[in-house]
Amino acid sequence: MMKVAIIGATGYGGLELIRFLHNHPEVERMDLFTSSEEGVIFSSKFGHLLNIQDVPLQKIDYETLMKYDVVFASTPSGVTSKLLPPLVGRGPKLIDLSGDYRLKNLQDYEKWYKKEPAPPEIIEKSVYGLTEWNEKNIKEAAFIANPGCYPTAVLLSILPLIKNGLIDPSFLVIDAKSGVSGAGNKPTKMTHFSETNENLSIYKINEHQHIPEIEQAIEMFTNVKATITFNTHLVPMTRGILATSYAPVTNGVTTKDLSECLLETYKKHPFIRVITDADTIGTSRVKGSNYCDVFAKVDERTNRATIIGVIDNLVKGAAGQAIQNMNVQMNLPQTTGLNVVPLFI
Amino acid sequence: MMKVAIIGATGYGGLELIRFLHNHPEVERMDLFTSSEEGVIFSSKFGHLLNIQDVPLQKIDYETLMKYDVVFASTPSGVTSKLLPPLVGRGPKLIDLSGDYRLKNLQDYEKWYKKEPAPPEIIEKSVYGLTEWNEKNIKEAAFIANPGCYPTAVLLSILPLIKNGLIDPSFLVIDAKSGVSGAGNKPTKMTHFSETNENLSIYKINEHQHIPEIEQAIEMFTNVKATITFNTHLVPMTRGILATSYAPVTNGVTTKDLSECLLETYKKHPFIRVITDADTIGTSRVKGSNYCDVFAKVDERTNRATIIGVIDNLVKGAAGQAIQNMNVQMNLPQTTGLNVVPLFI
Amino acid sequence: MMKVAIIGATGYGGLELIRFLHNHPEVERMDLFTSSEEGVIFSSKFGHLLNIQDVPLQKIDYETLMKYDVVFASTPSGVTSKLLPPLVGRGPKLIDLSGDYRLKNLQDYEKWYKKEPAPPEIIEKSVYGLTEWNEKNIKEAAFIANPGCYPTAVLLSILPLIKNGLIDPSFLVIDAKSGVSGAGNKPTKMTHFSETNENLSIYKINEHQHIPEIEQAIEMFTNVKATITFNTHLVPMTRGILATSYAPVTNGVTTKDLSECLLETYKKHPFIRVITDADTIGTSRVKGSNYCDVFAKVDERTNRATIIGVIDNLVKGAAGQAIQNMNVQMNLPQTTGLNVVPLFI
Amino acid sequence: MMKVAIIGATGYGGLELIRFLHNHPEVERMDLFTSSEEGVIFSSKFGHLLNIQDVPLQKIDYETLMKYDVVFASTPSGVTSKLLPPLVGRGPKLIDLSGDYRLKNLQDYEKWYKKEPAPPEIIEKSVYGLTEWNEKNIKEAAFIANPGCYPTAVLLSILPLIKNGLIDPSFLVIDAKSGVSGAGNKPTKMTHFSETNENLSIYKINEHQHIPEIEQAIEMFTNVKATITFNTHLVPMTRGILATSYAPVTNGVTTKDLSECLLETYKKHPFIRVITDADTIGTSRVKGSNYCDVFAKVDERTNRATIIGVIDNLVKGAAGQAIQNMNVQMNLPQTTGLNVVPLFI
Repeated sequence: MMKVAIIGATGYGGLELIRFLHNHPEVERMDLFTSSEEGVIFSSKFGHLLNIQDVPLQKIDYETLMKYDVVFASTPSGVTSKLLPPLVGRGPKLIDLSGDYRLKNLQDYEKWYKKEPAPPEIIEKSVYGLTEWNEKNIKEAAFIANPGCYPTAVLLSILPLIKNGLIDPSFLVIDAKSGVSGAGNKPTKMTHFSETNENLSIYKINEHQHIPEIEQAIEMFTNVKATITFNTHLVPMTRGILATSYAPVTNGVTTKDLSECLLETYKKHPFIRVITDADTIGTSRVKGSNYCDVFAKVDERTNRATIIGVIDNLVKGAAGQAIQNMNVQMNLPQTTGLNVVPLFI
Repeated sequence: MMKVAIIGATGYGGLELIRFLHNHPEVERMDLFTSSEEGVIFSSKFGHLLNIQDVPLQKIDYETLMKYDVVFASTPSGVTSKLLPPLVGRGPKLIDLSGDYRLKNLQDYEKWYKKEPAPPEIIEKSVYGLTEWNEKNIKEAAFIANPGCYPTAVLLSILPLIKNGLIDPSFLVIDAKSGVSGAGNKPTKMTHFSETNENLSIYKINEHQHIPEIEQAIEMFTNVKATITFNTHLVPMTRGILATSYAPVTNGVTTKDLSECLLETYKKHPFIRVITDADTIGTSRVKGSNYCDVFAKVDERTNRATIIGVIDNLVKGAAGQAIQNMNVQMNLPQTTGLNVVPLFI
Repeated sequence: MMKVAIIGATGYGGLELIRFLHNHPEVERMDLFTSSEEGVIFSSKFGHLLNIQDVPLQKIDYETLMKYDVVFASTPSGVTSKLLPPLVGRGPKLIDLSGDYRLKNLQDYEKWYKKEPAPPEIIEKSVYGLTEWNEKNIKEAAFIANPGCYPTAVLLSILPLIKNGLIDPSFLVIDAKSGVSGAGNKPTKMTHFSETNENLSIYKINEHQHIPEIEQAIEMFTNVKATITFNTHLVPMTRGILATSYAPVTNGVTTKDLSECLLETYKKHPFIRVITDADTIGTSRVKGSNYCDVFAKVDERTNRATIIGVIDNLVKGAAGQAIQNMNVQMNLPQTTGLNVVPLFI
Repeated sequence: MMKVAIIGATGYGGLELIRFLHNHPEVERMDLFTSSEEGVIFSSKFGHLLNIQDVPLQKIDYETLMKYDVVFASTPSGVTSKLLPPLVGRGPKLIDLSGDYRLKNLQDYEKWYKKEPAPPEIIEKSVYGLTEWNEKNIKEAAFIANPGCYPTAVLLSILPLIKNGLIDPSFLVIDAKSGVSGAGNKPTKMTHFSETNENLSIYKINEHQHIPEIEQAIEMFTNVKATITFNTHLVPMTRGILATSYAPVTNGVTTKDLSECLLETYKKHPFIRVITDADTIGTSRVKGSNYCDVFAKVDERTNRATIIGVIDNLVKGAAGQAIQNMNVQMNLPQTTGLNVVPLFI
């Protein structure tokens, strides 16, 4: 049985951690920490947790935090970089949901995040938590950099095909679409209902900070250097990411080859579901769950593949994968506390 | 451990039964039955259940159905009335989610449903499954008529106040609002995205078939005869019911009196949460969960109460309450298999 | 031909004024004024106006503003009270879209708006701009207090029935529902997409500042003093208000009586459409247009009327009615510049 | 002044024709025709047209139809192919909104539409109504095949860049996203609110019937043969298409080159707006209007262009462009009856 702490519980990542950890059979205690709202009863801020989480937020205190088995940081990029270092090597397994410890190259972080990077010695030791592709390292890791939402959907769908040489990564175009919850819980013009509703938009054109993360992971897991085109669209819905990737296929590769490669790669991975036949694939397939559904098909007119990855951005793209990583670290079955059925509607 | 069968699994009520029963710790086996799609692999119709429910739909066969501990009927009103009678008294506990066995007065059924009623002898024996108000009878029941979605939200919020004489039921106005999933999974003009989206509408003005159900239940549980005004609105969202009820309060009754009455009534009921202080109350509080949140406040300018009941129409308003009733019948804790945290977003 | 100025053009009311005035055949010039964004090219803020409104915002300057024929103030309540007084009696017709000049009783304003009221001598002279009910006064008015969105939908539907004694205003319950644009363009938690989407909520329970406005107008136009119960709900859609009102009918009054009263009252009013037969009535009927659709029906079980008023809150509930009032003041046909067909979807 | 007829007025294309033609200053008469609902009062089916279009639908009768100046066919693909031939050359200008007369190659039609093609001699004479690119032919045309919604958004954004050799069409990936109204008004599983809402999906993967139309038009207007990858996504909103296209740029081409090419191409075209600087571009920019907004940017990391086209699928993608074509045919300014300001929200 474990004691877990969540720093930054009031964000959407934090709320999803609570949703799953509350019923996690190996978690005997879960406490919530904050930098600014000490003493506030959590359910008074989040009415859906009435009678479930009627405890006060605690002040971030390293002496206290050291006593937990696992500490999740669900604070924004630029915050965790400063917040977590004092806890490193002091006891708890650390799982960071921000982008602060993912990029091994500090210049990349500075360029894409336009913030000061985290301490290099911690970045070096951090393990990239794409569970299905890094399980062995995660098992040993003291510090996990949980992947971004877009990279999770993209990488899980394209990595097997790149690794097995079925697609040509030299012209890889990734067109990703996300629900609005990915933008977090801070009210902004971009998340203002009247202007977001009934409005599909493209944003950060060619400039999304997940670009270097995807390129780094492609190289890390397949030894292929790819320069990707990656764009992101904001969809008027709350949850879900669908990433559509396009690449030429290698000579003679068929839809069947792609499907078999995906099936073979993921045959022992409970959260990756390979779709082999579909007219339509939507984000509702995975809503509220930790599944990532993947699909690939060759367009025989053009010899290009259309590759789909679908996740719930808040679950497999954030809190769910974080708990999955915790399970791996703790030698628990990956599905522990995560085996919920998607809501669909 | 139990074996359960679901008839009508392809409806939204059926899908929610699957979502919860799949992880119910006392259910060792769950099978799905259909009148028209025998042999169809369930997950080929509902992709969100890939790798979860890859079994074929079975033909409705009474000899087979008799062997289950519990049979849920999630077929539409007018269908269950004919479908279930052969199973009555033949073994399984029966839980019907339709409106066919709720109204004790056959003329009411004919008038409001404009269909032929179910056999009177079964209607007579059926127990109205408003769990919190009928637990003793449910425990003994072989046949449960699960309440309608609107009646659940309305009754749970107003019954304590009527029973304790705090509000005057002679001028009770109930203005209810529901997400679109309440209309079921059959595509119609009323549920056509382009015409439902961005369109709040009132429908079945003064003619909703849940009117006699609410009036019957008020009398059943409080011995008060009320003639209610009840209207229903279709809200452009998928899940959730919020019912706003209005009634004059009895002399001198305050908001505190209303809150205390609700708290006292429901203090031992895990799924009813009493809100005592709120600026805003929304359906997202209970989304995906079996909670019903209730609230009541006196408007001192008018000496009238505003009473709110909020549920997820597919859970506490359908499948969740059905499983809660099964738990009661089976002497399990009510929360067994149902203790999920609301999704909020 | 007229010159018009808009103060507060960046709010949703302002944007709708621009949408209609841009094509108004009697407006030869329209300029936009701001307190804080002088010099900003309007279409750089609002891309939908590219090539349409590529002009800079001008600084609010009374000498300049005096030269316009009409000045619309679309600034928030609490701002207009201070902003407009220097312009009163200096030339332009003034039309204020805020709540600052509607309530004749200063204590009411202080109590419900919790702000300092506007100068009493201006409030006294201001004319309440519910066009269909106050046309004669509007024609002479130099200062118009444009009605609130909720009051417009409510009053237009209930006033004829109260005035003609068909309903009993002593138990009048008004349950109103609005799209999110009514909350304006300032990002807040309440308008944050992820928390507003898929969430129907009730807010300001019994405390909405439109309550005294409705009661004042009922008395002003019917000489009846009513104490109303009024609640407001936030619907996950952008535009539209549907107000459902409930009241006992006077002895023997039928649905036909109600319909005929509405038809007779509004027979010469181009923007009020009386629905006489409907299973369902939704806000999409009036979307983007200046129509207000009204409907009333007697529930013969209870002898209570259900009365519906539907508007686009940004048009008939704000900018459209303001222009309609300007047309009246300027002796133009009411429909000038406003005869757009509703979008429906 | 013109007399116009609409066949298929009950579809969404038809409703939008009515919305604009009702206020078109050169249309003195507009009549609605139907194959199956003769005599039905139009506003009894579509409440938003109450007091606006209270006329009965007329039976399709060629003798009658011949007397109109313009006949719009807004019937589905597979229907117009049979419906219009008897009217060809009999008087009225014909404008068909379906896909039946767009593809010059009959085999393409059969392959992609899986229906019997229209008579070849009419297809041959039909003029493709992409107004900005085919104005001269449209002016002379008796029969116009109005472009599809996706092709309109795609072609208007990419044609200038292909024609001027700024992008390499040999690897052109087009990822398009549409609101649900593009699927028409017939209730289906794919347009069922509960399953469409909160669900972004890809559909007809690599198999959309607009593929040959886009390829044909690229060749027709630029003399370049391209084999495109084209996919379509269904976005949970009603109106709007955003097409994101990707292609390598020719040596040394910059964002400035792309912008200038677009600006130069469209400098005299009132409905095409070139965006030269944007962080975010959304469909709300054009909502309800006939604008098409275009944008292009070079990603200097990859030397690939990201090209955006945004339209309201029901306006510039259907009814609006049809009326624009009528205006050209009738020697009216293109904007006649179409100069509405986008709604934005």
